[in-house]
Amino acid sequence: MPKIYIIPKSEFDRVRDSQAAPRQKLSLIADMCRVNTLAGIKLAGSGHIGSSFSSLDIVTYLYYAEMNVTRLGLHHPARDIYFSSKGHDVPGLYSVLFSLGILPEEKFLKLRRLGGLPGHPDVQTPGIEANTGSLGMGISKAKGMAFAQRMPESRQGRSSTQEPSPDPGRIFVMTGDGELQEGQNYEALQTAVHQKLNNITVIVDHNKIQSDRLVEQTSDLGDIAGKFAGFGWHVRAADGHDFKQLEKVFSEFRRLRDKPKILIANTLKGRGVSFMENPEALTAGRGFYKWHSGAPDDEAFLAAHEELTQSLNQRLRQNRLAPLNVKIAGEANVIPAATHVDHVGKAFGRALTEIAGGRNDIVVLDSDLLLDCHLQDFALKYPGRFIENGIAEQDMVSMAGGLALEGFLPVVNSFSAFLTSRANEQIYTNACEKTKIIYAAHYAGLLPAGPGASHQSLRDISLLGAIPNCVIAEPANEEETRRLLKYFVDGEKQTYLLRLQIGPSPAKIDVPDHKLHVGQGTALAKGQDALLFAYGPVMLHEALQAHERLKEKSISLEVVDFPWLNRVDANWLGEIVRPHSFIYVLDNHSSFGGLGDAILNALSENRLTEGRRFKKFGVEGFPACGSAGEVLKYHKLDAASLAEAIFRH
Amino acid sequence: MPKIYIIPKSEFDRVRDSQAAPRQKLSLIADMCRVNTLAGIKLAGSGHIGSSFSSLDIVTYLYYAEMNVTRLGLHHPARDIYFSSKGHDVPGLYSVLFSLGILPEEKFLKLRRLGGLPGHPDVQTPGIEANTGSLGMGISKAKGMAFAQRMPESRQGRSSTQEPSPDPGRIFVMTGDGELQEGQNYEALQTAVHQKLNNITVIVDHNKIQSDRLVEQTSDLGDIAGKFAGFGWHVRAADGHDFKQLEKVFSEFRRLRDKPKILIANTLKGRGVSFMENPEALTAGRGFYKWHSGAPDDEAFLAAHEELTQSLNQRLRQNRLAPLNVKIAGEANVIPAATHVDHVGKAFGRALTEIAGGRNDIVVLDSDLLLDCHLQDFALKYPGRFIENGIAEQDMVSMAGGLALEGFLPVVNSFSAFLTSRANEQIYTNACEKTKIIYAAHYAGLLPAGPGASHQSLRDISLLGAIPNCVIAEPANEEETRRLLKYFVDGEKQTYLLRLQIGPSPAKIDVPDHKLHVGQGTALAKGQDALLFAYGPVMLHEALQAHERLKEKSISLEVVDFPWLNRVDANWLGEIVRPHSFIYVLDNHSSFGGLGDAILNALSENRLTEGRRFKKFGVEGFPACGSAGEVLKYHKLDAASLAEAIFRH
Repeated sequence: MPKIYIIPKSEFDRVRDSQAAPRQKLSLIADMCRVNTLAGIKLAGSGHIGSSFSSLDIVTYLYYAEMNVTRLGLHHPARDIYFSSKGHDVPGLYSVLFSLGILPEEKFLKLRRLGGLPGHPDVQTPGIEANTGSLGMGISKAKGMAFAQRMPESRQGRSSTQEPSPDPGRIFVMTGDGELQEGQNYEALQTAVHQKLNNITVIVDHNKIQSDRLVEQTSDLGDIAGKFAGFGWHVRAADGHDFKQLEKVFSEFRRLRDKPKILIANTLKGRGVSFMENPEALTAGRGFYKWHSGAPDDEAFLAAHEELTQSLNQRLRQNRLAPLNVKIAGEANVIPAATHVDHVGKAFGRALTEIAGGRNDIVVLDSDLLLDCHLQDFALKYPGRFIENGIAEQDMVSMAGGLALEGFLPVVNSFSAFLTSRANEQIYTNACEKTKIIYAAHYAGLLPAGPGASHQSLRDISLLGAIPNCVIAEPANEEETRRLLKYFVDGEKQTYLLRLQIGPSPAKIDVPDHKLHVGQGTALAKGQDALLFAYGPVMLHEALQAHERLKEKSISLEVVDFPWLNRVDANWLGEIVRPHSFIYVLDNHSSFGGLGDAILNALSENRLTEGRRFKKFGVEGFPACGSAGEVLKYHKLDAASLAEAIFRH
Repeated sequence: MPKIYIIPKSEFDRVRDSQAAPRQKLSLIADMCRVNTLAGIKLAGSGHIGSSFSSLDIVTYLYYAEMNVTRLGLHHPARDIYFSSKGHDVPGLYSVLFSLGILPEEKFLKLRRLGGLPGHPDVQTPGIEANTGSLGMGISKAKGMAFAQRMPESRQGRSSTQEPSPDPGRIFVMTGDGELQEGQNYEALQTAVHQKLNNITVIVDHNKIQSDRLVEQTSDLGDIAGKFAGFGWHVRAADGHDFKQLEKVFSEFRRLRDKPKILIANTLKGRGVSFMENPEALTAGRGFYKWHSGAPDDEAFLAAHEELTQSLNQRLRQNRLAPLNVKIAGEANVIPAATHVDHVGKAFGRALTEIAGGRNDIVVLDSDLLLDCHLQDFALKYPGRFIENGIAEQDMVSMAGGLALEGFLPVVNSFSAFLTSRANEQIYTNACEKTKIIYAAHYAGLLPAGPGASHQSLRDISLLGAIPNCVIAEPANEEETRRLLKYFVDGEKQTYLLRLQIGPSPAKIDVPDHKLHVGQGTALAKGQDALLFAYGPVMLHEALQAHERLKEKSISLEVVDFPWLNRVDANWLGEIVRPHSFIYVLDNHSSFGGLGDAILNALSENRLTEGRRFKKFGVEGFPACGSAGEVLKYHKLDAASLAEAIFRH
């Protein structure tokens, strides 16, 4: 297990205060931030290296050479504001904030941990100006900030008798290039011009690669500069790693006050580490880019660290400065060996490809999550029926609606948080047409909790629950995944949502072989004292462990796998609750609108509440960010907390 | 009350089969359709004249001169497909479908009535190819249809042994110009080119006026042609009322197969009736366009009918054809006199303007519904704090997020169906920032039911219910509106959703003067036999009438106004349910995720279910379209049905 070293803040001070030339300093500081970004991600066991590295020279330039915020402070109303709309490049920003002393070291070393730094930006973190992580919202947020800068005297808590504010600050917002596939950007581009919000500067981190592949393969943006100019913005292009060019563009931007401004910054994803840069990285990955998310393995980490620090020491020497003084930060977070005992996502990919063999009408749609949604086999086998739609969920869902109207069966894939929320109205409109569409909602539920609230999907059942004729289900294991998908494919014309845990299951959940019956579950552990409904591999794992813990206290807890999240068979329910006076439901979802509410309603409608006590366990408040264990415990949804709560109820 | 005449189908046949020149025929048929559109809307008591008239020449041209669908039939897989993305111009399309014999007369005469024609397109209606009404989805849907046309052999129910299909059909989709403010359009423009879906033709009905005002005032589109060309589409412009120009463009489009195509059709909103056309109409309305929605009054109706038929008869005579033979269709639907006994929307507008006087930090955002959301007083009094954002809900909500981060209190307005669904993820992201934002969700609930499922908002409570720290409430009358808004403005930092009935209340709901307490309601009618919770002017009106009906059956129903839709005070609840064994909740919402679920959960959590029977009334299935009385009855939410259900429970 490799030791991990970071460059302490004092080293940044040393370089900044040195006699090196200004651009030399910026270049050194940016690469020192790369070293620390790499360390943070390795410590966390996951994070986005590629985008952090492509944007880091620009972020360094802004904080060290362009913005007034280091002078005015983070709370001054006329400060310049920077934030990233894509958000997943935040490890790079954290390292800059750390170098400036805005983030303390102990926090910086806790990326993606409870009480540390979330995987996507959150304003609770010092120096973070906006929550992002779901794509395409940044320019709109910048508009609100720019509008606010117009009238500093109107803010809450300020009176007009205060001294007049200095010149309004400028808003700098970074976007990805793949991110420009989201339609909201174009709403914002247009309204910003109409509303004359000219103190916005958008910087496109044009690194040409999105999560899986090249932007031009995924959904080509065409002439980006021409598009933006067409929307009435000032457009400039520059090498996003060349500080001289950045200086020139930003100094020009300072003088341009009649329109909002866009810099298309040509960058390299993974910049700074040769094997993470394009084209080497894409060649090695056969067209797929490996370093978008996740942590490098030990070997790659050490090689990257070595390459960066060697280059830094060489340049320090050239500038007559002493070599880097690094300090040990800790040992690499052990990334759990992917044993793949059971993996519902992979099972989905396999089952989809298999079932599609007998069903010509199945068409699969993806929004730049080909690998994460396990669609590569389908795409290879049925390229004519695979639609890569890029990061444009609304368009993808409405397109699926058109396909369904014309006799096809679309299977629509994305992460659940984005699919069910960003495209909510489109899903509803499709449902109104009474066609049949299957939505595969990957990354459903609380875990993994590292990416933070933008990615954790705890509202999806409630977001689709009020759509008539919409069946929502979540499988506990690979076999149930296959059965549910088959059931949906064969089912009647309506809306289906298949919720899927992402990543390997904590353990294989053994569900006794059974035919699926809508609204019926399967007892996984018998018990006489209380009954607990749960679903999905994560929560059933906790439930079964709670069963074991309660056994030690001589309480016998029956655990039922209940894959149907909004359908309950009244007769079956009557039977299974008959011997029980204590009924519990464990949701991998907000406690609002999940299975708990479905079971409670079914109990009430069927007059089964009499003489029974009911309690639901679900996520209360905003989901915490951290490791799986930390976060389950934080929300009191781990086996120990569940056992305790049931014991005390 | 004026008699209403329509032109029967036989007259269309007569003109079509006559010796008049082809373009003369098209012009006659289009104006005859205008006569019938006007009649349909007058019969309905509401509808969209302006857009129907601006698009009617194009729609007539497509069906009578361009598309193969009249020859191949509505179910042929290779037919040309037309639909309108904006959807509210559907009365015009209905009149064309009626003229072709696709819609029978008895259905055509039942616009916005139960079992008739919905106010926005629905595929259950013969000839309608897609559900639309919420804006910006059309081009994406067209993409799905165009993709389907590529592989006719793969559709469900077809085998590869069938005869090969003819040339694939073309997809024609009409959009508004204001509609182009929606970002989804740009997702679709880009992906259509990337996916080479070249058999799509978009027609922009460029009538320059959106719901309230000129597009260029609301949110200027700039160089439309340049933008579309920038996205890689073939762009042509034409006079959308000149059949010769239409002929030329569409015949050119038939030859262009390497890109998708856009026609920017320059049209006049209200075309065909002088006083409904720009500039006369805008001058008369002092910049506001009066004929976007709603029915003309008797005088305007008669004048419009007269102008259209005189012009038609003159042109028929010039073509040596007999004058029009019209037939009586019925009497104008009586539009209820707007007595304005009580009007929560107007009260909201007044209270907002008043409260903003003492709060410099209040900023109001609108998405082209200034008049419907009663924001004109605020906009006049505080122009610097009023942001007209056009039809771009996502951008509006994220912009509000930026304003809130910078110390302002945004009040964000739109129709509830659009605000809570289209911008759902943006609302959630804002909430994660733990700022304070008030969302004013106008047009909440089942009524008015004429516009149909795209506009009726029956999911909004469930759509925001799982957002932590989000308080949702709906006032029963003007005074409660003012109190709730004030309470929200003064309240702590969290998310607030104010649900508002649109239009005048059926009657003033008298709520005894009371201070607001979160989670507590007010008894409006006392009773000992059963307890009914309800909220909002419409449902409380039905509830109070049910109280009267049950009194006749010697059942004494207590009716409680409960404005809090996701907060229940446990102590208060315990007190009020104490004497009751029968507890009912009446939701103006889907029965999923509404107040019913909140009350049931509170009963369960506080062990109040024992010895009590509970039932919730809400909207099941998709909301019906029709008059208020028809639809309440259809969903069994009218007083008579409620009284009956409670009597029998």
